[in-house]
Amino acid sequence: MFLLEIFNLIAIFVFAISASLSAIKRKFDLFGIAFVAFITSVGGGTVRDVLLGKFPVGWMQDSTFSYIIIAGIIVSFLFTKYLSKLKKTFFWFDTIGIGVAAVLGTHKALEAGLSEPLCILFGVISAIFGGVIRDTLCNDIPLIFRKEIYATACLVGSILYLLLYKLGLNFYWTMPITMLTTISIRILSIKYKVRLPDLTYKLKGNPNV
Amino acid sequence: MFLLEIFNLIAIFVFAISASLSAIKRKFDLFGIAFVAFITSVGGGTVRDVLLGKFPVGWMQDSTFSYIIIAGIIVSFLFTKYLSKLKKTFFWFDTIGIGVAAVLGTHKALEAGLSEPLCILFGVISAIFGGVIRDTLCNDIPLIFRKEIYATACLVGSILYLLLYKLGLNFYWTMPITMLTTISIRILSIKYKVRLPDLTYKLKGNPNV
Amino acid sequence: MFLLEIFNLIAIFVFAISASLSAIKRKFDLFGIAFVAFITSVGGGTVRDVLLGKFPVGWMQDSTFSYIIIAGIIVSFLFTKYLSKLKKTFFWFDTIGIGVAAVLGTHKALEAGLSEPLCILFGVISAIFGGVIRDTLCNDIPLIFRKEIYATACLVGSILYLLLYKLGLNFYWTMPITMLTTISIRILSIKYKVRLPDLTYKLKGNPNV
Repeated sequence: MFLLEIFNLIAIFVFAISASLSAIKRKFDLFGIAFVAFITSVGGGTVRDVLLGKFPVGWMQDSTFSYIIIAGIIVSFLFTKYLSKLKKTFFWFDTIGIGVAAVLGTHKALEAGLSEPLCILFGVISAIFGGVIRDTLCNDIPLIFRKEIYATACLVGSILYLLLYKLGLNFYWTMPITMLTTISIRILSIKYKVRLPDLTYKLKGNPNV
Repeated sequence: MFLLEIFNLIAIFVFAISASLSAIKRKFDLFGIAFVAFITSVGGGTVRDVLLGKFPVGWMQDSTFSYIIIAGIIVSFLFTKYLSKLKKTFFWFDTIGIGVAAVLGTHKALEAGLSEPLCILFGVISAIFGGVIRDTLCNDIPLIFRKEIYATACLVGSILYLLLYKLGLNFYWTMPITMLTTISIRILSIKYKVRLPDLTYKLKGNPNV
Repeated sequence: MFLLEIFNLIAIFVFAISASLSAIKRKFDLFGIAFVAFITSVGGGTVRDVLLGKFPVGWMQDSTFSYIIIAGIIVSFLFTKYLSKLKKTFFWFDTIGIGVAAVLGTHKALEAGLSEPLCILFGVISAIFGGVIRDTLCNDIPLIFRKEIYATACLVGSILYLLLYKLGLNFYWTMPITMLTTISIRILSIKYKVRLPDLTYKLKGNPNV
């Protein structure tokens, strides 16, 4: 599990930076930025652990998480201008982040003995809930609800991890395969501008809406 | 408790449909719709069970809940246009839903040995919290705070259930009586346009506000 | 701990009143006002206890909390006009409130054996999370993120409490010292209009933002 831990810390670090930049754009002060960064970084895992009844929740058992988040916030403060230009770099780290979080969430739910649909759900929740909390605090409609391939990539990654796990594959195989799949879906969907449809067209001319 | 289980599943099913329609109107994509539907359906019960320290929370112990929600989402996708015209049908199902949720929340709190005011509070929370989360995610001020007879009906139903329970009445009597009361209050308040007052008139001419 | 209990009840009472006034201004009806007041008053402590895995959460173990909140709501309803003029009075009570909540949160986290950075975080969360939930429900960007000395005062109070605790000082000394420090920082920062900077100036002329 050592490799997963490393990737998990990378994911938390990058989530902290992306949340900080989001808060800076909204003119939050230094404390507000730090608070939003913290909640975004640990939010998904916290909801996951609370629902599983695992206390204390993951990030509270190991100070490393707190230090990594603080490091992410400090980096955001120092290199605000530089980092906000690196959109592609973020896209990559962020994609790695959700890939790891989806795998970790699915894995923890499997270990807790949950049913298959719940394991998949936990993978997706772990990956996206932090961002949902961040956008809600920033008074936006969560982006995830409209930029759907983000979440759909997590969904596919989570389902694939479950299938490979059931087939009895070793963790050192399932993790890279699942992560690469999630990352590839996200990259290809951005490159070819693939989007899930919305259904508003069905409501046209309906006076009750 | 078999009857209550059936009604509970109906409530979850209808909450999933109403949340889906709400998300479709806001141009969420397919995934966003499914996510909002899921959270709205299980939100009230999740908050209730987490506060009571009951883990895993209710909907995670039984896959039936997940399947019912998925069924509700699929129905919403397939019959969007048709369902959005059935305002009266929804009103009825939704009213049945909050009636059952209020009774179930009060009942679970009584079983957990909470004090009377907390049992009433848990009834109301179970009935309305899903909707509050839904509206917050959709970036609205929760409707419940302004269409108050909705919540007031839950409050009366919850208090009545507590009273009948303390009188020692059998569950098969208390449930239909409480539910019918909640439903009647909601229907009559809509029919006669009864609303609780707001207090803004008290603030007129106050320079500090 | 008796003194702390008294201050805690005062804090909850005042949080209930300030939240009620906030909801009245937004034209919430009577029920909406009561609901927002309740969540604001118990929100910080609930998040704290859930994260610590302490069930049932604090306010559910003792009906006194519920009665104090109900009293606060009734006072708000009866004296809306009068109270909304007493801005300075509120400022004082509110400042006492966050001071106590920061100390209590830090103390409970220390008792639960958490690491130092987490104890400080719990102090801040206990003090401000109720207000964050309130502002999110009211569809605002949480004020706390832009009026930062509020939260920074909690942060300093929480750190100071931790230091004095580690030095082995008696609770009857650490509490008043910590509270007075928190209160003084808040008052002086308002008086001399001290604010933490935001970082938007770093983003000027950046086409990616």
